[in-house]
Amino acid sequence: MTFRDDVAAPALGDDEARVRVGVAGVCATDLELCRGYYPFEGVLGHEFVGRVVEAPTAPELVGHRVVGEINAPCGRCAACLAGLGNHCPERTVLGILGRSGAFAEELVLPVANLHRLPGELSRERATFVEPLAAAYQLCEQVPLRPTDRVLVVGAGRLGQLVARVLAEGGCEVSVVARHQRQRELLAEIGVSVVGDAEALPSRCFDVVVEASGSPSGFEVARAAVRPRGTIVLKSTYAGRLELDASALVVDEITLVGSRCGPFAPAIRALAGGRIDPAPLIEAVYPLERGVEALDHAGRPGALKVLITIDG
Amino acid sequence: MTFRDDVAAPALGDDEARVRVGVAGVCATDLELCRGYYPFEGVLGHEFVGRVVEAPTAPELVGHRVVGEINAPCGRCAACLAGLGNHCPERTVLGILGRSGAFAEELVLPVANLHRLPGELSRERATFVEPLAAAYQLCEQVPLRPTDRVLVVGAGRLGQLVARVLAEGGCEVSVVARHQRQRELLAEIGVSVVGDAEALPSRCFDVVVEASGSPSGFEVARAAVRPRGTIVLKSTYAGRLELDASALVVDEITLVGSRCGPFAPAIRALAGGRIDPAPLIEAVYPLERGVEALDHAGRPGALKVLITIDG
Repeated sequence: MTFRDDVAAPALGDDEARVRVGVAGVCATDLELCRGYYPFEGVLGHEFVGRVVEAPTAPELVGHRVVGEINAPCGRCAACLAGLGNHCPERTVLGILGRSGAFAEELVLPVANLHRLPGELSRERATFVEPLAAAYQLCEQVPLRPTDRVLVVGAGRLGQLVARVLAEGGCEVSVVARHQRQRELLAEIGVSVVGDAEALPSRCFDVVVEASGSPSGFEVARAAVRPRGTIVLKSTYAGRLELDASALVVDEITLVGSRCGPFAPAIRALAGGRIDPAPLIEAVYPLERGVEALDHAGRPGALKVLITIDG
Repeated sequence: MTFRDDVAAPALGDDEARVRVGVAGVCATDLELCRGYYPFEGVLGHEFVGRVVEAPTAPELVGHRVVGEINAPCGRCAACLAGLGNHCPERTVLGILGRSGAFAEELVLPVANLHRLPGELSRERATFVEPLAAAYQLCEQVPLRPTDRVLVVGAGRLGQLVARVLAEGGCEVSVVARHQRQRELLAEIGVSVVGDAEALPSRCFDVVVEASGSPSGFEVARAAVRPRGTIVLKSTYAGRLELDASALVVDEITLVGSRCGPFAPAIRALAGGRIDPAPLIEAVYPLERGVEALDHAGRPGALKVLITIDG
C-alpha cells in the first residue's frame, strides 16, 4: 500500500458524474484488500461524502453534496433486470472492483448511484451512510420482530452500527464486545454488553449477527443461536470457514450472507438524529497521511478512521 | 452392526403406545449412525408402518395402522413451549437418540406422535411418510413460488422424494442424477435430469436443494445458486464442510438446514396418489437379514430398501 500523488483523475462515462471527495471512511474491506483478499490494485475507498463537480446528463446535481452507492451495474443483464443490480456480474464497485475509489481528490460514479444530502447532516456523520446502509441490509433480508432476542458478535465499526440499527427496531439486543471503548459506546445507547462470550446462554438467540469476521466469532454465533434460528454473516472473511454441516441440518439453522444495503433509511436515520455515529470516530487523517490512516484502522479494537481530502 | 434376537421389547412410558412394526425403511441416517456419525448404540430404524397393540391412554388406537413422528419432546421446556418440539434438548428420537428404533418387532412412541393411516394406502407406500415429510419440510422453511427455478443435487432416496414434492408445487425442477436408474425414475415424473454437473448453467437457480450429503454436492449447489438465492441442506454430512464465507457474503446467499417435517401433507400426497413412491423400492428383506438390507442400502446409487418385520 502506497501513497501516490501522480494518479490521473478517472474519466467520465455515459450518465456518470464526477465528485470531488470531501471525507472518506476506512472500512475493514479496505484492510482486507490491502492483504490481497481480492485482486484489486487501484485507488481504495468506498465510504465518502463529496460534492458533484461535473454531471453532463444531470447538471442540476452540480454543486450539491452527495453520498454514493458503490455498485455500478450494467443495467441490461438478467441480474439487473431482476432487480439485483448489486449482483450484476458486469458491475464495477467503487474502490473494490474495476473502479477507482474515494481515497483520492476525485471519483466518478453513475448519476443513478448518487444521493443528495440534506443540509443539516454534517459531512463526518454522512460518511457513515454507506456502512449504515450495510447494517440496514440485514433487516431487508431477515425480517425482525420487536420480541426477537438478537445477539451481535463483534463491536468494531460494523458491529456498532448494526447494534444501533437493531436497537432502533425495538429488539432485545446484546453485543459481544472485546474492548473497553467498544463497551462504553454500547452502554451509551443502552444495549446489553457481553464481555466474555463464554458467559452467553447457549442456543437461545433468535437471530445472531456475525460482525467480527473471524472463525472464532462464527463459533460464538453458532453456539448462541437457537434451533431454527438465523445467523447473519455481515463481514467478509479472509480465508475459508469450516462448519459442522450436520449440526446445521439437525438444528435447522439458517445462515444468511449480507452485504451492501439501502441508502435511504440510513440517510433518514442520520438526518433525523436517531442514529448518531459521531462518537465512533476515532481519528481523522489528511489524505497525504492515508497510509497511516489505514494502519490505524487496522489496530485491534479500532473504531472509525476518517480521511479528509477537500479541506 | 449386528442382528440380535435377544433384545427386550421397550417399556411403555406415560401417554405412550406400543406398536407392532410391519415394515421399516432404511435411510442414509441409519448408515451414518452405523459409521459412528452419532454415538447411538440401540436398535436403528425410524421409518415404519405398524399396528398399535397397547395404548393405555388412547385405547381407541389399538388395532389401527399408524406411522409415527420420530421426535419425542418433553413438552415442558422453552423450545417445546415455543412450538419447537422437534428441537427439544430433552427429546428422544426413534432409532437415533435414546429411543429404541423400528428395526425390531415392537417400538414405543408417545401417542401424540402417531398418525392413523387411511385404509387405501399400502404399507409399502406408507413407509415413505417419514422421509416424504422431511422433503415437505423444505417448503415449510423456504416458501417456493411456481416461477422459481429449483435444482436438486443428488437423486438418491431423499433427492427423489424432494424432486416429487417440488414438481407438485409447479416449480421448474432440475435434478443432478449420477446413476441410470435414478435418471429413469426422474424422467417418469417429467423432471429435467442433469447427468453432468459441469453442464449446469452457473449462478441461475433461485433455490438449490443439496440432497447428496457430500462436500462435492455442496460445491455444485454453490456454483448453481443465483446471487441472493437459497441453498437448502437436506442431508446430514459426515465430517465438516468447508466453505468460502466471503463469497457467501458477497453473493448474499442464504443457507438453510432442514430436517424432519410435517406428516399430514405427506400422508395426503400418498393417500391421494399424487406422489407414488413405489417405483423407488429397490429391495425388500426380512428382519433376520437386516444387516444385508443395510449393506444393500449403502451401495452407490441404491434406492429404497425395506425391511419386513410382521409378515
